Amino acid sequence: MSSVVEREIAEQADAIERQLRLGRDATERVAGKIRARTPSSVVIAARGSSDNAGRYAQYLLGVHNRLVVTLATPSVFTLYDAPPLLSDALVIGVSQSGRSPDIVAVLEEGRRQGAQVVAVTSDTESPLAKAADMCLALHAGEELAVAATKTYTTELCALAMLSAAMDASADRWEELGRLPTLVRRAHENTRSLGDGAKRFAESGRFVVLGRGFNYATAFEISLKLKETSYVVAESYSSADFRHGPSAMLEKGFPVVLIAPSGKTHADSVELLALCEQRGAEVVAISDDEAVLSRAALSLAIPPGVPEWLSPFTAIVPGQVFAVSLARARGLDPDKPRGLSKITETR
Amino acid sequence: MSSVVEREIAEQADAIERQLRLGRDATERVAGKIRARTPSSVVIAARGSSDNAGRYAQYLLGVHNRLVVTLATPSVFTLYDAPPLLSDALVIGVSQSGRSPDIVAVLEEGRRQGAQVVAVTSDTESPLAKAADMCLALHAGEELAVAATKTYTTELCALAMLSAAMDASADRWEELGRLPTLVRRAHENTRSLGDGAKRFAESGRFVVLGRGFNYATAFEISLKLKETSYVVAESYSSADFRHGPSAMLEKGFPVVLIAPSGKTHADSVELLALCEQRGAEVVAISDDEAVLSRAALSLAIPPGVPEWLSPFTAIVPGQVFAVSLARARGLDPDKPRGLSKITETR
Repeated sequence: MSSVVEREIAEQADAIERQLRLGRDATERVAGKIRARTPSSVVIAARGSSDNAGRYAQYLLGVHNRLVVTLATPSVFTLYDAPPLLSDALVIGVSQSGRSPDIVAVLEEGRRQGAQVVAVTSDTESPLAKAADMCLALHAGEELAVAATKTYTTELCALAMLSAAMDASADRWEELGRLPTLVRRAHENTRSLGDGAKRFAESGRFVVLGRGFNYATAFEISLKLKETSYVVAESYSSADFRHGPSAMLEKGFPVVLIAPSGKTHADSVELLALCEQRGAEVVAISDDEAVLSRAALSLAIPPGVPEWLSPFTAIVPGQVFAVSLARARGLDPDKPRGLSKITETR
Repeated sequence: MSSVVEREIAEQADAIERQLRLGRDATERVAGKIRARTPSSVVIAARGSSDNAGRYAQYLLGVHNRLVVTLATPSVFTLYDAPPLLSDALVIGVSQSGRSPDIVAVLEEGRRQGAQVVAVTSDTESPLAKAADMCLALHAGEELAVAATKTYTTELCALAMLSAAMDASADRWEELGRLPTLVRRAHENTRSLGDGAKRFAESGRFVVLGRGFNYATAFEISLKLKETSYVVAESYSSADFRHGPSAMLEKGFPVVLIAPSGKTHADSVELLALCEQRGAEVVAISDDEAVLSRAALSLAIPPGVPEWLSPFTAIVPGQVFAVSLARARGLDPDKPRGLSKITETR
């Protein structure tokens, strides 16, 4: 009865536990080498879910490590043959398979220019790993579903570990150690939505709102909705949403609102009020009872999660919701139309 | 009969002509100062349409000036109180009004850290201009419509001029000089779509595809569709589209495809074939007759435009299409629901 993707969603706490246990030594070594050179900026190259993990790292390395982080525009490297100057940068390529030629091209160029180059990938023999001079292996185990779930959270974990190691922060390592329990709890809370997704079965379009660390979560939930349910789902930071796109809101419009405790919370509550005013239907992912009680569908995440780690717990109900919506629409969440596990873009 | 936004769309060639004439001296001065210090990277802070102009600059300064360009994540500055280290960066704030507090905050932080800071704004007395140590004034004239059109293309122009001046490239200045004529021609080609938008009047969702320099155009057309027609419109680079979202494509799904001549063209033609295979309805913006003849709605742009300047001509039919779609849906394109001209986000 359970689909492959649902089994992999359920495996995430174990995968994160493995990543923390098996990945720490390599992460400390890589972080030591990076610290020895102090990069002027960070360039992250990735596509799809891995790009969303990169978006998380953009905030994390910005806020905790004070680094300017660019999500690479691979076209600049592969189409225009005019790569930017990278010699003082730290270049990180993130790819589950390690086989996306345009991502590999960014790393090869970084290495050619003498930049520090790190690959984050499941396959340490992949072209991506070979193009890098340092590799962080993902320990998610084999992922069979086309829609990435446990490789996404394991990528988040690898990048969060790298950030903690670059800062040599014992506190953050301690907080990371709590992740498996927290992610397990997030999954227990929301594993069965019952008929919760049914009221959205006819909705062809969604907006997903998140800010700060959970801007990445908004992108990733939006991608899961598209992959499994073929709906149009667009993600915004709440700030950008007010600059134009909020005009879309109308009665019955479905909005997924990621509203964990922390510095973005006041902003989320304001957006919730805007949604209510327009009669939008809110799916709330939050640990705040007051927010959850006002939503059409409330997806509770565990309280007490440090804000920087909330993307690990907030993504879980989003994945479950996407799968439930596919079911409610009569689709097989394991068989996204026209997609294959590995996409090679140039 | 003509709406305010249509009048402003028609004024764009004149606005660009003014920008080139009145803005050149200031641009050369600013570029001279920037060259004297050689920034390690560029951080662009903007929201809404201005962020899309920033996205254009990301490719332009990457491909022509070999700089790594980051689109700033203002939340890192305003919410988390942990700004990244910017002292060797060039920080550019783009805002028509110059009054978005979070954008101003990024520039103030840059200046505090000793970075070079440039404001691109219509109001040289605005908080943004005051937070910067250099200012590039926009000469678009007053814009009344809520949906930005001529300020967007004038921002593109100001940034393209800055790139050419930083390179001291006589060839590029010469090419820029041809812009007013080319933009005027793009508008003449497509100013009246007749009933062209009617077949899409019932479509609530769109995908807009562009790559390279026109990745920005895809974002901007998508924003215009949302602002004026309240549809869900999502923009992708063609590469990202293949990593998941293409699952959405089905019979009758409307896709706006930006397919000008140049290095991204082969890729656009492949996407067109994918759209045809799935029975999607393509709105093509192209100077290639072969592409145009295969589209459900063909929007011809003038041939012979250098690829780096194609975003100036490709956006025009996109703006016209968005307004025509609003009309076809019985909406007033001058009165977007719940939006005001200036959005203040923190």
